[in-house]
Amino acid sequence: MSLNSFGHLFRFTTWGESHGPALGAVVDGCPPGVPLSEALIQPWLDKRRPGQNRNTTQRQEPDAVRILSGVFEGVTTGTSISLLIENTDQRSKDYGDIAQTFRPGHADLTYHLKYGVRDYRGGGRSSARETAARVAAGGVARQVLAALAPTVRITGYMVQMGEKRIDGSRFDWAEITRNDFWCPDPVAAAEWEDYLAWLRKDDHNSVGAMIEVVAEGVPPGLGAPIYGKLDSDLASAMMSINAVKGVEIGEGMAAAALTGRDNADEIFWENGRVGYGSNHAGGILGGISTGQPITVRFAVKPTSSILSPRRSIRLDGTPAEVVTKGRHDPCVGIRAVPVGEAMMALVLADHLLLDRGQTGGVRGRIG
Amino acid sequence: MSLNSFGHLFRFTTWGESHGPALGAVVDGCPPGVPLSEALIQPWLDKRRPGQNRNTTQRQEPDAVRILSGVFEGVTTGTSISLLIENTDQRSKDYGDIAQTFRPGHADLTYHLKYGVRDYRGGGRSSARETAARVAAGGVARQVLAALAPTVRITGYMVQMGEKRIDGSRFDWAEITRNDFWCPDPVAAAEWEDYLAWLRKDDHNSVGAMIEVVAEGVPPGLGAPIYGKLDSDLASAMMSINAVKGVEIGEGMAAAALTGRDNADEIFWENGRVGYGSNHAGGILGGISTGQPITVRFAVKPTSSILSPRRSIRLDGTPAEVVTKGRHDPCVGIRAVPVGEAMMALVLADHLLLDRGQTGGVRGRIG
Amino acid sequence: MSLNSFGHLFRFTTWGESHGPALGAVVDGCPPGVPLSEALIQPWLDKRRPGQNRNTTQRQEPDAVRILSGVFEGVTTGTSISLLIENTDQRSKDYGDIAQTFRPGHADLTYHLKYGVRDYRGGGRSSARETAARVAAGGVARQVLAALAPTVRITGYMVQMGEKRIDGSRFDWAEITRNDFWCPDPVAAAEWEDYLAWLRKDDHNSVGAMIEVVAEGVPPGLGAPIYGKLDSDLASAMMSINAVKGVEIGEGMAAAALTGRDNADEIFWENGRVGYGSNHAGGILGGISTGQPITVRFAVKPTSSILSPRRSIRLDGTPAEVVTKGRHDPCVGIRAVPVGEAMMALVLADHLLLDRGQTGGVRGRIG
Amino acid sequence: MSLNSFGHLFRFTTWGESHGPALGAVVDGCPPGVPLSEALIQPWLDKRRPGQNRNTTQRQEPDAVRILSGVFEGVTTGTSISLLIENTDQRSKDYGDIAQTFRPGHADLTYHLKYGVRDYRGGGRSSARETAARVAAGGVARQVLAALAPTVRITGYMVQMGEKRIDGSRFDWAEITRNDFWCPDPVAAAEWEDYLAWLRKDDHNSVGAMIEVVAEGVPPGLGAPIYGKLDSDLASAMMSINAVKGVEIGEGMAAAALTGRDNADEIFWENGRVGYGSNHAGGILGGISTGQPITVRFAVKPTSSILSPRRSIRLDGTPAEVVTKGRHDPCVGIRAVPVGEAMMALVLADHLLLDRGQTGGVRGRIG
Repeated sequence: MSLNSFGHLFRFTTWGESHGPALGAVVDGCPPGVPLSEALIQPWLDKRRPGQNRNTTQRQEPDAVRILSGVFEGVTTGTSISLLIENTDQRSKDYGDIAQTFRPGHADLTYHLKYGVRDYRGGGRSSARETAARVAAGGVARQVLAALAPTVRITGYMVQMGEKRIDGSRFDWAEITRNDFWCPDPVAAAEWEDYLAWLRKDDHNSVGAMIEVVAEGVPPGLGAPIYGKLDSDLASAMMSINAVKGVEIGEGMAAAALTGRDNADEIFWENGRVGYGSNHAGGILGGISTGQPITVRFAVKPTSSILSPRRSIRLDGTPAEVVTKGRHDPCVGIRAVPVGEAMMALVLADHLLLDRGQTGGVRGRIG
Repeated sequence: MSLNSFGHLFRFTTWGESHGPALGAVVDGCPPGVPLSEALIQPWLDKRRPGQNRNTTQRQEPDAVRILSGVFEGVTTGTSISLLIENTDQRSKDYGDIAQTFRPGHADLTYHLKYGVRDYRGGGRSSARETAARVAAGGVARQVLAALAPTVRITGYMVQMGEKRIDGSRFDWAEITRNDFWCPDPVAAAEWEDYLAWLRKDDHNSVGAMIEVVAEGVPPGLGAPIYGKLDSDLASAMMSINAVKGVEIGEGMAAAALTGRDNADEIFWENGRVGYGSNHAGGILGGISTGQPITVRFAVKPTSSILSPRRSIRLDGTPAEVVTKGRHDPCVGIRAVPVGEAMMALVLADHLLLDRGQTGGVRGRIG
Repeated sequence: MSLNSFGHLFRFTTWGESHGPALGAVVDGCPPGVPLSEALIQPWLDKRRPGQNRNTTQRQEPDAVRILSGVFEGVTTGTSISLLIENTDQRSKDYGDIAQTFRPGHADLTYHLKYGVRDYRGGGRSSARETAARVAAGGVARQVLAALAPTVRITGYMVQMGEKRIDGSRFDWAEITRNDFWCPDPVAAAEWEDYLAWLRKDDHNSVGAMIEVVAEGVPPGLGAPIYGKLDSDLASAMMSINAVKGVEIGEGMAAAALTGRDNADEIFWENGRVGYGSNHAGGILGGISTGQPITVRFAVKPTSSILSPRRSIRLDGTPAEVVTKGRHDPCVGIRAVPVGEAMMALVLADHLLLDRGQTGGVRGRIG
Repeated sequence: MSLNSFGHLFRFTTWGESHGPALGAVVDGCPPGVPLSEALIQPWLDKRRPGQNRNTTQRQEPDAVRILSGVFEGVTTGTSISLLIENTDQRSKDYGDIAQTFRPGHADLTYHLKYGVRDYRGGGRSSARETAARVAAGGVARQVLAALAPTVRITGYMVQMGEKRIDGSRFDWAEITRNDFWCPDPVAAAEWEDYLAWLRKDDHNSVGAMIEVVAEGVPPGLGAPIYGKLDSDLASAMMSINAVKGVEIGEGMAAAALTGRDNADEIFWENGRVGYGSNHAGGILGGISTGQPITVRFAVKPTSSILSPRRSIRLDGTPAEVVTKGRHDPCVGIRAVPVGEAMMALVLADHLLLDRGQTGGVRGRIG
C-alpha cells in the first residue's frame, strides 16, 4: 500500500504537515554498514531550504535534520532510520483566512472533499514542505549509492522558466551552482532573475518551470519489468512532487514526432564495453537501465499562491476572492531541483537493492 | 513489491511471453457481486487486437480470453480472477536471428544484461503482447467502475502521429471509432492513412504517436497522497506501457510556460455543485480527483522494428546490421489507445476501492 | 515489503533502538475524523510501561507519547500519523560488556551475523522496547475501532506462568486489572507473586508465560483469504512480538487431538442472528471472522537475561561466561499482555478498512 | 496487499476454486537462470495428490502442472512464472445440497457473510484444493534453494494423530516415506492406520493431526526484523493453510513452562564455526536464522466434512442437519505435510532473496 510510502526494498515513509511541530521520514531497508550522519544529509536540505535568496519564499527555517534511529557509531545498522526536521517558523496567523476558503490551484478543496477535515495551515499535508522529508531520505539514498554504485552522479537543473528556455549551446555544468536557479546557461539565468523580480513585484504573479535531472554512471540492469520499470518508477516519483504536471524520459513527448530510423540508438562494442550512437532512450530500454545517462524532465506548474485575486468559494458555498499573501515562491520550480535529484537517488538506490535481491547483481556477458 | 503487479487494493499481476503458450493476468481484490463474463471482456481485447487492418501488424490471433476463477454464476465472488489468453499464432522462426543480435531500441540488450538469459522470441516478456493481459484486466476494472461509479466514461484517442497533430477545432467524439487510428479529427485521420502507407511501403520506417485518455464523470476524492496520488499512479501506469516516453496530466509539460494567473482553475458553486472555470489541472489537485474530467496524454516512440538497417552488435560483441522483418506495427501508438484506456480504468477502480477503504467514500460537505 | 511495517491498509512502521534518543511509529491509512490525542493513547503505554512494580524491570521511563502529525483539532486528518516516545533513562554503561559478547537466547549473534554491525546497547533494535511503538500505534487502532466498530472489546490476560496455569473455574474478568500479572484467577496471581519473588531473588532465573487475548464483538466478515486471512495475520502479529514462540487460535495445538464430531461448532439461527453451539474455531473460519469472540493465545519464552551464568562466545570466537546484570523482567510475559492487545487492535482495525475497501462492508443476508 | 499473494521479493499469487476449470499460481521475483521444468515440480504435487491411498480422499486427479511462462530452454528468465493445474475430476453434483446449507466448521457461512456470493461447489476458494497451487509454487522455491542455498534440506512429517503421538525414541528419518502418514515412527504408523480405518468406517468421524517441518542447512542471517521476521512469516505461512489452528517454533507453546536457565541455547565456537548446546529456539533468534535447524510445528483440526450429522442452518435461517457425503480425507493433516514443506521452501527462498537485496548476503565475521 502506497499512501505515504515509496519504494520497493529501499522504502521510505514520510509524515508531517506544513505547520505541525515537525516533519520527517522513516527509511526502511537501508543496507547495513553505510556511513551516515546528520552532517552527510544536511547539505541536501540546505540546498532545498527556502529563504536563501529573494527568489524563494522568505520563510526562514534551519531545516536541521536529526537522525533518531538506525545509525550506530557512524554507520547504518540495517534497521529503520528515522529522520526528523522540526518546524520552527510556522506563522499560522498568516493562514487564518484559508480555513474557510478554498484556494484555486491548491489541494484545499480536494482534501476537504476527500477527508472532510483538513489541516488548512499552510496547506497542511499538501504543502511542498513535505519535500524536505524526501530530500532528507534522498540523502540516505545518496549514501547507499556512494557505497554500492560510486560511479553514479546525479545532477538537476532548470531548463525553462515560463516561456524562456535555456540555450543548449551555452550549457555549462559549472554554471549550475553559480546562480539562484540551478541554471546551466548564464545568459538565461540573468534573464530569469529580471523576469522573476518583475513577476513578483510588478505583476503579482508566478510562473512555471521545467527541470531536468541526469544520472550518469548508472550501471546497466536496474529496473524491474513490467510494473516496477525504472522509467515507470521515475515517472511516479517525479509526478508525486507537488505541482508537477508532466514527466519525460529521454526524448519524452517529442518521441511522438520521431521516426523509427531517427529514434534508434545504435549499439557498438568499444574497448570491451557497450557503446551507443545516441541516447534518445534517456538511458532506459524495456524499463531497464542501459548504462547511458538517465535523463528525466518534469514540468512544475506556477505557484497557485499569488497576490492577484482569483475567484473561488467558501466552505458554505458562497463566492470569494482569493489573494494569497503569506510568503511564497514566485517559481516553485527552483526548489523542485533538489527534490527531483532526491527522487532520482531514491529510485536508483531502491532498484540497486531490488536488482541485487532478484538477480544477485550479476550481469549477462557480451564478447 | 511491484515486479509484475500493479495496484494497491484492486491489484493485477500479469505473466506471459510473446511466443509462449499463453499469457494472462490475475486480478486480486475485485469486489464481490460484480457482473463479469468473457463476453464482457472480449470487446476490449478485440479493440486492441492486431491484424485488424493494414496499419497494424498482420499477426492474426483471436486473443480469446478465458476466465478460470473468481466468477460464479455470472458475478465475481471476491476471490482472485484468473484471465488466460492463448497464443495461437507464434511464428517463432521469424525471430531466429535475434537470438544472437540485440535490436536497437528494443529491450534485447537490457534484458540480456540484467538477467543473463532471455526468451528472445518476439521480444519475450518485453513484447507489447503483454498489454493484452492488461486490457483483459482492464475489462474487469471497467465492470467494477460500472457497478460502483457508473458515471465514469473513459475515452482514448490519438492526437498526434509523427509531426502531424489533430486540429482541435475539428475534434469530433463520434469520429474516434470511425477510422483506424482512434482519431477524433477526420482530416488528420485521412492524412495519417496516407502517411503511414508511405512510411511502411516506401520509407521502410515507423513513427511515434501521442495518445490522450480522458475519464469523465470521475467522482471527486480519489487519490491517496502523498505516494499513491492519482496522477502519480497514472504516470506510473502509462509509463509502464511499452515504448511510452512521456506522460502529461492536464497542461502537462506546457505548465512550465504558464503563469499562476493563467493556470489557476477558478472555483464556483453552481446548483449545489462545485464548478470550475477551466481545467488546466486535468482533473487532479494535490493528487486527488476534483470531479472534472481527468486528462492524461502520453507519447509512444516509433516502433524500433523497421526494415531500414540499423547498426548493432551480437552476443559475442561483433558488429551487426539489424533489419527487422517479422510483422510489426509501423505506428504502435495506434494499439496503445485501448491499452491507455485499460490503464485508466485499472487505476480508477483501484483508487475507488482504496478510498472506500480509508475514508468510507464519504465526502466533505460544502454549502 | 514488510521489514519494519505491518498491515495492509491501516499500516504502521516502527523505528528506534533501546538506547537511541527516541523510538516511534508512523501510522498510515488511518481514516479521517477519528478522535485522537496523546491523552487517548497514553493509558495504553502506561499499562505496558516498566518500573511499575517489582515484577518488571526497574527501568523508569515516563514513555510519554507525542503526536507529531496527522491530527488536527482533535481528530485524524487521513494523513500519516507520527508518534514519538523519547528514551529518557538509558544507562548505556550497564551494557558495555555485551559489545564483545553474544548473550545466549538473545538476538546479539544473529544481528551480528546478518548485519555485520549492531547497536548492542540494550539489544538495540531487537530489544522489547520496540513494543512501546506498537502499543502507541495500537492506541490509534483502538480509536479506529471505537469509531467504526464500537462493539469490539479487547482483553488480554496471562493464563500460565512457568508450569502454573490458572484454574478456569476461578476465571474472573474483574480480577485481571487487580494484580500485577493481568491474571484472571486471584489464587494463581498470589502463587505467581511468590514464585516470581523466589525466581528473581533466590534462583536468579526467569520464566516463560502464556497470554490469551480475546476480542469480543467483532463483526463477522473480517479477513482476506487466502494470504491475508485474519488468523494468518494474527499469527504473524503475535509471533513478531519479542520472545514469542507459539501462537494458537481457538483450540490451537489441541485441535490435533480432537475429532471432527467434537470440533464442529454447530450453527443456529436465534432471534434474527447467527448463533453457535461452541467456539472451538476461536471466532475464525476460512480466515474470516464468524462474529464469535476471537481467541488468540501465545507463549512467551523466559527472559534470556538472567543472573545465572551461561556459556557463550566473544566476537573473536573465544569462550565467555555471560551473566546479565542490568535491569530485566523475570517474566517478560507480563508486559506482553498489553502488546498482544495492541496487535489484536491493529490487525482488527486493518481488516475493518481492508474489508470496507473490497466489499464495501456489506454483509450477505440470512433469513 | 496480501489478499491472494504471499512473499516479499519471491512472491506468489494463487487463484482457482475447487470445482472451477483450473487453479494455479503466478510466481514473481524468481531469479533468472534457475533450472526449472514441469518434471521438476510434478513430484511435489504427486506427494500432495489425493487418491493415493485409502486414507485420503478418493478424488482422482492427475494434478498435472503446466508452466506457461517465465521459463526458456530449461531455465527461469527472471520474469513471472505461471503455473496451471487443470481440475479434471470435479463431481459438482455431490455438492448440490451445500448451496443452501452452511456446513459447520467450514467457511461456507463466513464466505457468505463476507462476500454475499460464493462458489459453494466443494468449498470453492476455501477448499484445501488451493494448496495444490502452493505446492507447485513451492516446487519453484525448492529450485531456487537448490541453486542458491544447496545445503537446505526440508522434511515434513506427522508427529501426532488425534491423541496418539509418536514416540521420539523410535524416530527414524527413513521411515517417513515408507508409510501413508509421513510418520517417522513405524509403531505409531501402524496404530494410526488401524485408528483411521475405524474412524472412517465405524465411527463416521475425522481427526486432527500435528505436523512438524524441519529445515536443515539454512544459512544464518535470514529474516527481516521487525515485521518480516522469519518466525513471523513462517507463522503466517503455516496458519494460512486450511484447517491450521496453531503454529510453534522450537519449544513453541511449551516455552511458557520453561525457565531462562533451561531455555538458553549456549553458544560455542568449534572448528571455525558457531555451535550451540541445544536448539530450544528452533533455529531462529530475534526473527533471524541462527544456522541451526529450523523447526516448525502446526496443528491441523479434524476435517469438518463427516458422515455424522451436525446441526446447522440454511440460507433462509431454517435449521438443517448436515451430513457431508462427498469424498473427504478423514485426516486432512496427512496431506498438509507436503503443503507445510512447500510453505517452508517458499518462506526460505523469499528471505534468501530479501536478505541478498538488503545486506548483499555478506555475513558478520567471528574470530
